Amino acid sequence: MQRTTQQVRLKQRPDGLTDDNTWELTHTEVPEISDGQFVVDVQYISVDPAMRGWLNDVRSYIPPVQIGEVMRAIGVGTVTKSRHPDFAVGTTVRGSFGVTNVAISDGDDVTTVDVSVAPGTTWLGALGMPGMTAYFGLFEIGKIRAGETLLVSGAAGAVGSIAGQIGKLKGATVIGIAGGPEKCDWLTNDLDFDHAIDYKNEHVLRRLREIAPDGVDVYFDNVGGPTLDAALANLARGARIAICGSISSYNEDALPPGPSRYMSLLVFRASMTGFVVFDYADRFDEAITDLAAWIANGEIIAHEHVVDGGISAFGETLNMLFAGRNFGKLVLKT
Amino acid sequence: MQRTTQQVRLKQRPDGLTDDNTWELTHTEVPEISDGQFVVDVQYISVDPAMRGWLNDVRSYIPPVQIGEVMRAIGVGTVTKSRHPDFAVGTTVRGSFGVTNVAISDGDDVTTVDVSVAPGTTWLGALGMPGMTAYFGLFEIGKIRAGETLLVSGAAGAVGSIAGQIGKLKGATVIGIAGGPEKCDWLTNDLDFDHAIDYKNEHVLRRLREIAPDGVDVYFDNVGGPTLDAALANLARGARIAICGSISSYNEDALPPGPSRYMSLLVFRASMTGFVVFDYADRFDEAITDLAAWIANGEIIAHEHVVDGGISAFGETLNMLFAGRNFGKLVLKT
Repeated sequence: MQRTTQQVRLKQRPDGLTDDNTWELTHTEVPEISDGQFVVDVQYISVDPAMRGWLNDVRSYIPPVQIGEVMRAIGVGTVTKSRHPDFAVGTTVRGSFGVTNVAISDGDDVTTVDVSVAPGTTWLGALGMPGMTAYFGLFEIGKIRAGETLLVSGAAGAVGSIAGQIGKLKGATVIGIAGGPEKCDWLTNDLDFDHAIDYKNEHVLRRLREIAPDGVDVYFDNVGGPTLDAALANLARGARIAICGSISSYNEDALPPGPSRYMSLLVFRASMTGFVVFDYADRFDEAITDLAAWIANGEIIAHEHVVDGGISAFGETLNMLFAGRNFGKLVLKT
Repeated sequence: MQRTTQQVRLKQRPDGLTDDNTWELTHTEVPEISDGQFVVDVQYISVDPAMRGWLNDVRSYIPPVQIGEVMRAIGVGTVTKSRHPDFAVGTTVRGSFGVTNVAISDGDDVTTVDVSVAPGTTWLGALGMPGMTAYFGLFEIGKIRAGETLLVSGAAGAVGSIAGQIGKLKGATVIGIAGGPEKCDWLTNDLDFDHAIDYKNEHVLRRLREIAPDGVDVYFDNVGGPTLDAALANLARGARIAICGSISSYNEDALPPGPSRYMSLLVFRASMTGFVVFDYADRFDEAITDLAAWIANGEIIAHEHVVDGGISAFGETLNMLFAGRNFGKLVLKT
């Protein structure tokens, strides 16, 4: 009993937030597979802020999604039919299957995931790209050291929640910035952050100066905008800013003004460095080994926010990110 | 025959460009010196863009000049009286004497300069702070390597002209950005830059894309503003931006918008790092040895633009910098 393939395709490039005009839901029969192929029943789809950038027809670190194409997305699922020697029926796999409930694959860039280590959804979060991003951003770009002060924005998100917890684990004092008291409570109560700043209800720079009068050694930036300026104004000497994302601007039509306080880099002898997690692909195993151990011994809480909405709920689920409605890694159940 | 001391003091903090209301010229008798002191007849005063920043009452890498204080400036002069064992009459010295024609010193932070190596004015330029800034910015922050493409803004200025020439010397392809055809001709004809972009008459980003289609590996930024955005838009992967100054903004009342294209740092896996030359003070000798050799063998042209205006011309000389009217290091003759 094979289901019909349901897929979300890009219908029209959005101005600002995506809406119903952005997407088209298509239904097709699942085709027969050839030798070297297999069928994946995709159960969970990763929903990420970076997806918004892939919709813009501009040069970036990855080509834009084309009109009519299935929306690019990483998913986790089970092999249900196989004519491929390495992917037996019943195997759990992860790959860039797109926003679809069924995928035909030749195994390219598909990895098997060990669900005895962590559930499939965690392989999209702490053991997936968000976890890799947090790990390499914090160690390779932030170069965090014990005793330092780490500031993380988007701290209740998929990347930020892991970055902050890794910082704690490594002996840093960790300050998270998130929107709303619930998220801030989650950060300090559940994830053991030292401090949380609620940017929706508090003056970020003023609070930051109170909490970290000697400045911030590492700022892991997921949001850009005024929060980046606040961090720039309160750096420690020799600070490192890891530029991971700028979710505050992803839905802007024009480029918003940049960080007006960037000359603080000079005052504080600080650096601001961008990175893309794919550059560390040959070291993902190392990060997974560490993160899996930390999750297993309870030092890191991997939290996924699963929306059980089916493929057709993709658009509204994506917008939850920009409304800041997710706790931890946002995942769509097909 | 001792002259009267003429000094320029800060009368009022400026909004925007400095003018006659900013400065006060005072005349006083030269006092007698005590044991351990000496008198310096200051001949040349260094006029630097950073001076504008010292007039703002804000936290920075150095305390602001106070109202009524003699304007901070580095000068070169001759010891004319001495009760100090290390500074004999006739010695040429350099120090932070202020905007003054005569200084009393106890020798603190005063160095003797060897005028057989280069004239006194060069000890304010290529062998002074501008040269040190170019040297350490390019090597320590830019980490320039042979075969790379170096972009320098403010390229006809004191720091930029040296930074570009060091880049050439080290085997980089060097592109300078300067204002006006005369400066651009000077860069390519006299200083041996590979290319020059006239930001007053050319579209910087378009020209940069033509000249450096593979992007810029190192950007030595002296100006900030739209030029920084143009550079950000045309980086090579792994590029390093050395933030040395932002002369375009020094006379702004409010912070201008920052570099709106800063997210290019992520696309290009690039970094933007601020530095302050004083941090390398314990290595200045090394830089002076190198630079003096390069000047001696003609590999670097040290050019000083000397304004023979006397102390009272300080204000208008400072504004020449912001009008972009200097070629190389701007120096005021007292």
